[in-house]
Amino acid sequence: MKQVYLDNAATTALRPEVINRMTEVLANTYGNASSTHSFGRSAKALLEQCRKNIAIYFNVSASEIVFTSGGTEADNLALRSAVRDLGVTEIITSKIEHHAVLHTAEQLQDEYNIKISYVNLDGCGMIDYTHLEDLLKASDKAMVSLMHVNNEIGNVLDIQHVAKLCKENNALFHSDGVQSVGHFKLDLQTIPVDFLAASAHKFHGPKGVGFCFVRKESGLRPLIFGGEQERGHRAGTESIHNIVGMDEALKIAYDNLDAEKEQITSIKTYFINQLKKVIPSVSFNGGCEDTTKSTYTLVNVCLPLEPSKTPMLQFQLDLKGIACSKGSACQSGSSQQSHVLAEILDEEKLKYPSVRFSFSVFTTTEEIDYTINVLKDIFNA
Amino acid sequence: MKQVYLDNAATTALRPEVINRMTEVLANTYGNASSTHSFGRSAKALLEQCRKNIAIYFNVSASEIVFTSGGTEADNLALRSAVRDLGVTEIITSKIEHHAVLHTAEQLQDEYNIKISYVNLDGCGMIDYTHLEDLLKASDKAMVSLMHVNNEIGNVLDIQHVAKLCKENNALFHSDGVQSVGHFKLDLQTIPVDFLAASAHKFHGPKGVGFCFVRKESGLRPLIFGGEQERGHRAGTESIHNIVGMDEALKIAYDNLDAEKEQITSIKTYFINQLKKVIPSVSFNGGCEDTTKSTYTLVNVCLPLEPSKTPMLQFQLDLKGIACSKGSACQSGSSQQSHVLAEILDEEKLKYPSVRFSFSVFTTTEEIDYTINVLKDIFNA
Repeated sequence: MKQVYLDNAATTALRPEVINRMTEVLANTYGNASSTHSFGRSAKALLEQCRKNIAIYFNVSASEIVFTSGGTEADNLALRSAVRDLGVTEIITSKIEHHAVLHTAEQLQDEYNIKISYVNLDGCGMIDYTHLEDLLKASDKAMVSLMHVNNEIGNVLDIQHVAKLCKENNALFHSDGVQSVGHFKLDLQTIPVDFLAASAHKFHGPKGVGFCFVRKESGLRPLIFGGEQERGHRAGTESIHNIVGMDEALKIAYDNLDAEKEQITSIKTYFINQLKKVIPSVSFNGGCEDTTKSTYTLVNVCLPLEPSKTPMLQFQLDLKGIACSKGSACQSGSSQQSHVLAEILDEEKLKYPSVRFSFSVFTTTEEIDYTINVLKDIFNA
Repeated sequence: MKQVYLDNAATTALRPEVINRMTEVLANTYGNASSTHSFGRSAKALLEQCRKNIAIYFNVSASEIVFTSGGTEADNLALRSAVRDLGVTEIITSKIEHHAVLHTAEQLQDEYNIKISYVNLDGCGMIDYTHLEDLLKASDKAMVSLMHVNNEIGNVLDIQHVAKLCKENNALFHSDGVQSVGHFKLDLQTIPVDFLAASAHKFHGPKGVGFCFVRKESGLRPLIFGGEQERGHRAGTESIHNIVGMDEALKIAYDNLDAEKEQITSIKTYFINQLKKVIPSVSFNGGCEDTTKSTYTLVNVCLPLEPSKTPMLQFQLDLKGIACSKGSACQSGSSQQSHVLAEILDEEKLKYPSVRFSFSVFTTTEEIDYTINVLKDIFNA
């Protein structure tokens, strides 16, 4: 059966180069990086080389990169330690953040009785920066947690501006960069974030590995206690093959960023234009139609289907081999409405199904043509 | 250069079958297990098959296996939730536990002002079960955390007896099974532990994956919050290739357990006998000389070297390509004395260097002969 993968915001196919390097490490570098003998030193050397390589892309020190089991753990690490160890009494976030941030903040509220404030959004889901500034001015000791690129609607935060506002108001700034790292260049010397979370499997690396950028002398303490790995920031034997895979994937992503960005942007533009041709009443959720406001890697479309056709939409797309997402992957197992769309769409639009299509360098124009045709047939059936 | 790997308690070489299955998954099953389309369903099917396979070896339900990034995370998950969510006000443990337990317990003491009680040990580091029972009877709401197999000296806990004592005294029981799972059969229907931590890289699986057995209806809540993965017990996209690698490694370990146990036991016995022949004054730390008290996978030897030779011992072994461990891997990076040996050895023995040699099915008699010769030469030089 034909298979078209348009769910790259959920996860991505691994690059062959990544698999090759991982397989090599699995076979040959099995030492524990905490061991001082030659097997351990080989693993440690590889680990520290990866850390250095990754740090360079963000213009930070290697010691500021803490490897984790993924983006969710990195978010949890930053949020929990901020509240427990760094005196944070208020988390300022938005209602369209990933659950890794929202549910963690709610849990911390339960445990520590902190305040959670949600910044206002406009109808496109863009952050109201004036309101954010007001919240910051009114707050005592806050941490702002706002994602750089929204995973469902693709909206891009003015991360530089938010970092500046946080600095001016003596607040910490954590950003979930899971949809951003590997797709956008981030110079963290220019952007004064305190913590940034990343996940390898969103940029053609392996699942189960990510990192948290932790600004030097932040005072961050671990989420996971035990051995002295990661300079005491994260206990547990390092997953060297996964870290090497992440390093390789990030290298390819950033070394080819401009060309791949152009290629994927043209795929997205083509998708939007073709879809508008066959379904003129389609609309685009959030800021995703406007590439100046949103990432080039995804669109979230509201399809004004007749109510009778709606329940079968996902099933029909799946039957045609098209992988896409209703809301985000973390929710697609449930029948719940996306919390992001529920927040930004009006009643009228919430009646219709919305679907996220997300692209990668492996997506072809031919796959887009096929998908558009399938959507047209469903719409006109 | 000749390389002899005798540090299998720190980590193990992957079995070729494990690498093959992981590589296959990396290339072909890249869907996010939370996605409902065909790519996601393939990943989910694989994930749940692994969970079922693993559960069978412990005679538990698949839903009682929670995948984690390793043993340390699994220990943290159980200990933190016990204190935060399950009303535990006292952790009863021993001073020779892994730091994943000891440091986590200390952190929880700081955060929640719980009591930590340490059970007495005899000169061999064996648990004083009478004292444990006294502690349990005197306690209000306790969790006992005692490892099944000690990672430094190999002592095996009477886990069945401890579980029974905990049951009788209405205490929870967590066991760090990191050195045990894959090496010992554990029927968790017969052994009423509440939580058991395991790590794949200790039984020829990949680093960065493990699991926590969580007894049904335990009330355990997450360490890492976010999506609804692992039935709400652990957020974060699942590392399918690592989980498949763990499944494969565990299958091979348990399907060949008797034969491999016999083979490794004879390696250990041979090592002990040969070493005693060439260095009659050698002694064995903990219960490790007695295979009824200790695991067949390691020995921890105290070498009565002249003081002048001691500082160079590790260096000389390394120079000869022999990988072994002073204390445990987690400590070998530091110059600190092992906290386990510091607890159980007398002043006299602590003056001498102790070295852990740990074996696997890949260890050969020829490697042991080589190692014994090197030790003899160092001793007699």
